[in-house]
Amino acid sequence: MRKVAILGIGQIPIDEHWEKSIRHLAGDAAIAAIAEAHIEPTAVESLYVGNMLSGALNKQENVSALIADWVGLRGIEASKIEAACGSGAAAFRSGMMAVASGVNDLVLVVGVEKMTETGGTNTTSHLASAADADHEAAHGLSFVALNALIMRRYLHEFGWKHNDFAPFSINAHANGAKNPNARLQEAITQKDYLRARMVADPINLLDASPIGDGAAAILLYPAEKIRRNGQPIITVAASAAATDSIAVHDRFDAMRLAAAETSAQKAYAQANVTPSEIDFFELHDAFSIMAALSLEACGFAERGQGVRLGLENQITPQGRIPVATRGGLKARGHPVGATGVYQLVEVIQQLRGQGGDTQVPGAKIGMAQNIGGSGATVITHILQRE
Amino acid sequence: MRKVAILGIGQIPIDEHWEKSIRHLAGDAAIAAIAEAHIEPTAVESLYVGNMLSGALNKQENVSALIADWVGLRGIEASKIEAACGSGAAAFRSGMMAVASGVNDLVLVVGVEKMTETGGTNTTSHLASAADADHEAAHGLSFVALNALIMRRYLHEFGWKHNDFAPFSINAHANGAKNPNARLQEAITQKDYLRARMVADPINLLDASPIGDGAAAILLYPAEKIRRNGQPIITVAASAAATDSIAVHDRFDAMRLAAAETSAQKAYAQANVTPSEIDFFELHDAFSIMAALSLEACGFAERGQGVRLGLENQITPQGRIPVATRGGLKARGHPVGATGVYQLVEVIQQLRGQGGDTQVPGAKIGMAQNIGGSGATVITHILQRE
Repeated sequence: MRKVAILGIGQIPIDEHWEKSIRHLAGDAAIAAIAEAHIEPTAVESLYVGNMLSGALNKQENVSALIADWVGLRGIEASKIEAACGSGAAAFRSGMMAVASGVNDLVLVVGVEKMTETGGTNTTSHLASAADADHEAAHGLSFVALNALIMRRYLHEFGWKHNDFAPFSINAHANGAKNPNARLQEAITQKDYLRARMVADPINLLDASPIGDGAAAILLYPAEKIRRNGQPIITVAASAAATDSIAVHDRFDAMRLAAAETSAQKAYAQANVTPSEIDFFELHDAFSIMAALSLEACGFAERGQGVRLGLENQITPQGRIPVATRGGLKARGHPVGATGVYQLVEVIQQLRGQGGDTQVPGAKIGMAQNIGGSGATVITHILQRE
Repeated sequence: MRKVAILGIGQIPIDEHWEKSIRHLAGDAAIAAIAEAHIEPTAVESLYVGNMLSGALNKQENVSALIADWVGLRGIEASKIEAACGSGAAAFRSGMMAVASGVNDLVLVVGVEKMTETGGTNTTSHLASAADADHEAAHGLSFVALNALIMRRYLHEFGWKHNDFAPFSINAHANGAKNPNARLQEAITQKDYLRARMVADPINLLDASPIGDGAAAILLYPAEKIRRNGQPIITVAASAAATDSIAVHDRFDAMRLAAAETSAQKAYAQANVTPSEIDFFELHDAFSIMAALSLEACGFAERGQGVRLGLENQITPQGRIPVATRGGLKARGHPVGATGVYQLVEVIQQLRGQGGDTQVPGAKIGMAQNIGGSGATVITHILQRE
């Protein structure tokens, strides 16, 4: 297997893009990546698209062929990978494997989702399709309600108060305020968090990430063929995926993201690093409870102690384990199937030293973790600057 | 890249399975494949699911994690590949690449679709999501109407009559009548074809394939590790994918399936064979016009002459290029995202000599071609007996 490097990245601001169809969103990100890499578009050999809801919300399946044609790549191999909100990183992993195995040299990965203009379709109902349709959604559980049950149990079991979660939201918004591509570019205070409207008790509006229309793209290429040109090379040091039961009540332990733990452990082994060597962590903070559980699953905190990292100010760009450095799902936004690719684009920016006002000082090894469902499908990547 | 072999196959009859959810359909096929291979289920390392409409019709995304857990494989890597009606073969190709590259040894591929019980959702409308949502479906074109336009043009351009297409349907039904897993197990006559109710002129009911609930599964393993035990080994000699524009009016030539041609040419090159060496061809006869165009694109007939193969009786199991040997999409049925895996299971059955009453005599090299949209995404596989 060959080492895989990053040849180019592209993204569009996450927003309500009323004037653009899903092909335009994906195309804009893809063309930005192609332009940044200074390659001929026709050099791209295959396309892997991460997307969750194009069929349900946009009445458009087969988006990979659509996008390939739209960006001038008619004829190339193209497919869509779906793993609910983990679709973006799942697509990146497929593209990475195509390059690593030698099937292709130059591969384009695009994550895209168009969620805010859906012709009257109920987006909340379709987001619940990430949960177990027969045993969770059928009982009226929305996706936020499911996470509220997990958060409620966490508060009960470990003795935290709701406002102990505030630092996750405050850090994410502080970082998002400095990211021109973020959906919510405004800092918030502890007081804002305490006053936020309740969505599904105990999850309030500032515990929950916003949906949006967005697309991000990454070009992959064999590391051995990259010309350095004085620039650092960013490579994929690890890529690992794991699953758990979709239904939360089926898990052996609802307070433990077993698939996150498994995929992180596999990734650490592949990259030959320990959690202490990870310089920053783009985690899947769809809800603040997920941030805490992810930190615990990946070995940054003990069971039930994830919130402590926030309270001790260790998750900011200057902290011990910076998270959501460009706003995270909470403030950068969560266009579900695109999110995993945004996370990876942001890891690459940090490793290149392009983190802007939220640059993590001296970042050399970054981790991104993308979660489909409330912990059902988890894909972890570790990237490094060489 | 390692040569990949077949370790086991499973399928369920295509039907209206009112008592089964999508997990049960997929699970039944997967467990059949695992049982046939005589392996411990826990030996399976990853799962690739081909499915198109679970989100739209079953309100269930993230089906790969759901299925993995249901069949006792909780924790393994799992993802869903979607390429409209080409999803099944696209998933097989992903699984094949995982084994060929050495990422995994033992991989499970499942194609599944549940279409007949959809809580009031309009299946025809969701099938149209395989077409261009903005420029075809938005104008009211259903998927059958789109194929009717293509067939109408074909009749006009090449001077055939509608009933010249009858042999495709008659052959498919004759073969399906002898396949216990087929949706339609009844032979038809030329008279039946002529009298069939019109659906979208010139496509009548016997030009069109039936939807259904179905699932098929294949276990893949490195050829070098297979123990022969006196049985023939079936290997994947070629796997190739290509795309075209989704919208038919955007194509350079609406009478030519360019992606089918490209992927077939790539497959022939990989397998080092010519069309004349292919013993039988499981083609994507979603509509009879697609059978004719596929035969032409893959080099079995000249442009505009695909129907001649039927009229000259060359497509039956005893003919020069048998097609739809177990009923094809037309009679075996077309549970859209599962179809590509059914095709491959049937190729494997023929190569093993398990083709039953429609066995192709001396079959050694078989080809399967799965099409997403009206020619937008095409995946071609060539398998052989060693």
